[in-house]
Amino acid sequence: MSDSALAVPKGFLAAACSSGIKKSGKLDMALIFTEQPADCAGVFTTNKVVAAPVRLTESRVRHGLCQAILVNSGNANACTGEKGLQDAKYCGDLVADALDVAPEFVAVASTGVIGVPLPIYCFDEHVATLCRMLSNDQFDGVARAMMTTDAFPKMSSRTLKLGGAEINILGLAKGAGMIHPDMATMLAFVMTDACLADGLLEGVLEKSVKASFNRITVDRDTSTNDMALLLASGVAGNDVIAEGSEDLERFNRAVDEIMLDLAKMIVRDGEGATKLVRIQVEGALDDSEALVAARSIATSQLVKTAFFGEDANWGRIIAAAGYAGIDLDPDQVSIRFDQVTMVEKGLGLGPEQEAIASEVLKQPEFTVTVNLGSGDGSAYYYTSDLSYEYVKINADYRT
Amino acid sequence: MSDSALAVPKGFLAAACSSGIKKSGKLDMALIFTEQPADCAGVFTTNKVVAAPVRLTESRVRHGLCQAILVNSGNANACTGEKGLQDAKYCGDLVADALDVAPEFVAVASTGVIGVPLPIYCFDEHVATLCRMLSNDQFDGVARAMMTTDAFPKMSSRTLKLGGAEINILGLAKGAGMIHPDMATMLAFVMTDACLADGLLEGVLEKSVKASFNRITVDRDTSTNDMALLLASGVAGNDVIAEGSEDLERFNRAVDEIMLDLAKMIVRDGEGATKLVRIQVEGALDDSEALVAARSIATSQLVKTAFFGEDANWGRIIAAAGYAGIDLDPDQVSIRFDQVTMVEKGLGLGPEQEAIASEVLKQPEFTVTVNLGSGDGSAYYYTSDLSYEYVKINADYRT
Repeated sequence: MSDSALAVPKGFLAAACSSGIKKSGKLDMALIFTEQPADCAGVFTTNKVVAAPVRLTESRVRHGLCQAILVNSGNANACTGEKGLQDAKYCGDLVADALDVAPEFVAVASTGVIGVPLPIYCFDEHVATLCRMLSNDQFDGVARAMMTTDAFPKMSSRTLKLGGAEINILGLAKGAGMIHPDMATMLAFVMTDACLADGLLEGVLEKSVKASFNRITVDRDTSTNDMALLLASGVAGNDVIAEGSEDLERFNRAVDEIMLDLAKMIVRDGEGATKLVRIQVEGALDDSEALVAARSIATSQLVKTAFFGEDANWGRIIAAAGYAGIDLDPDQVSIRFDQVTMVEKGLGLGPEQEAIASEVLKQPEFTVTVNLGSGDGSAYYYTSDLSYEYVKINADYRT
Repeated sequence: MSDSALAVPKGFLAAACSSGIKKSGKLDMALIFTEQPADCAGVFTTNKVVAAPVRLTESRVRHGLCQAILVNSGNANACTGEKGLQDAKYCGDLVADALDVAPEFVAVASTGVIGVPLPIYCFDEHVATLCRMLSNDQFDGVARAMMTTDAFPKMSSRTLKLGGAEINILGLAKGAGMIHPDMATMLAFVMTDACLADGLLEGVLEKSVKASFNRITVDRDTSTNDMALLLASGVAGNDVIAEGSEDLERFNRAVDEIMLDLAKMIVRDGEGATKLVRIQVEGALDDSEALVAARSIATSQLVKTAFFGEDANWGRIIAAAGYAGIDLDPDQVSIRFDQVTMVEKGLGLGPEQEAIASEVLKQPEFTVTVNLGSGDGSAYYYTSDLSYEYVKINADYRT
């Protein structure tokens, strides 16, 4: 996807370069900039081991304003102690100086190897260049510069008429390992030119994250560097989106869609993944029990390897629901692969039905619906299969 | 290991055969028998989806007596509904009839594929033969007949002088997939000829299981068929082991050792495993926080693939401790691979130290010690690495 296909929100500029952090010479550093300070909300990793850039950005975003995001891949600046925090601040200051903005308005984000000091000379040499390169057609480059083991850049955007103006929303994200909520393990930056009433942005972000990045799993490892930021430049010229308004609902729905797009791309591009599978749990006592069951199935190694083997092994699915810790009567459980029923009231429908279901599993995307038969609760979760390639990527990551 | 190397407890007989459940023609059915009803205690899967043989045996063992265990591999008789329970009872009845014992004294256990009805004709044809074959030198065969994806049979035994007599303890177990506590996902039968005072056996079993089968993980999938039984024939001629006695402590210690032997064999033979790694957490606020951290590290896919890659990737270890859900100050964490310190107070000691640690990882067995630096709590967990072979085994399991 080139930038021409993206709905770039007004007031945002970007630049990306290869600074030498990645030995491969690929893009590894990028900058997003708004001409005026943008409203900003953020959600961050729940890991107790929090990378320096996350600590810094979390404290800065609390003020609700942001004018620049400096992001690098190839080095996570995590488990780097007090020095790591100083390094993160130093890099942010390089941006603040070059662009003449307050240091408190600069967010920094890093992703890559843990435990190695940030190579500061790469920033010394390239931040000024990035600042000079800023333009409104380099967001594709930003998405690429965020990539670690990602196979493709992740972008999604929407344009909608709202409050008498055309507003744009653009989201960028990176996966692809250490993907597990809550929150999902990645970086995501979503930008809009919409103008919202004060204090609404955080609610929009939290609602969308819950339904997207917190509903995906690749390997259930929660990273030290998770961060999702939502920035609003407010220059689209729309009537201010008010609390409780239909416009707010429409706006939030668009952000939902973009984040779910990105979330699904992250799973599809999960390390070694060959399948994107939606686990849909129905008939639970309530939604939260449904979510627990969906997560348990979505994170089961045995279920995920069966998907890789295109084996309609429903026994593993029912077993994963069984150890989820929720109330469950196995004799009430039904299971479908897309539209093919495999299990009814706890009993398999036999080899012929399995052969039909196996065809479903050959597709790159499908849905497994598990009905627990005990109530009206439902929830979904997206997961990948577990392949040789996952093992290979993660065994060889640093060598 | 042949039976001649095993300390077979007096009063126990066994037999094993290939009944045709496994298409390969390998051993797949076995019988353990005591000439008089033995005292018996059991622990069972915590999965809500409980296989028929587990439901039957759990209800029978509650009476505290057992005279026969019929076990098969190749079919788990799980998710087979009411019919599965009838089948389990029917197979037990075949044993009860042939050996003229009460049906309530017959335990049944199954392991293998989920969701396929038990092939009853295999039992019709072979149970009588098994009963005729019973002898005191076929325990190796029993261990083999329990195997599913296991690469080797798992046996451990001890002989000790206790209360004026020589007593023997023999344990048999099978792994190797769906290995996760609580309790660990396997079958284990431990037999002794020791005579214990009434009501002590259950406590011995629970204590030993907690320190062995509940401290291992291969893939964090809790199975539907877990079962560990401890049988005491009481014919060794020892003075009765009394509550609170030193003899009870010594006896329990020997059972601990046997179960930990078996548990470690299960991990060493974990599906696709090439390493047996002890995760030792020290310096936690208390033992239970240490256990939570140890389990989180031991079950991390990223940690396990790094072990497979022989990569001393301590960042993943500290991250897994960080998302475990316990209190943790990253700046107090130290990490050792065997005797090689990699991390001190949250900071890596650099590439040279990593090169030395990499040598540790080349060994088939090693210990990772994580000191959280915040208290006196400690706990261990055994885990395997995650290899290509794991994925292969589980993707192709049923094809």
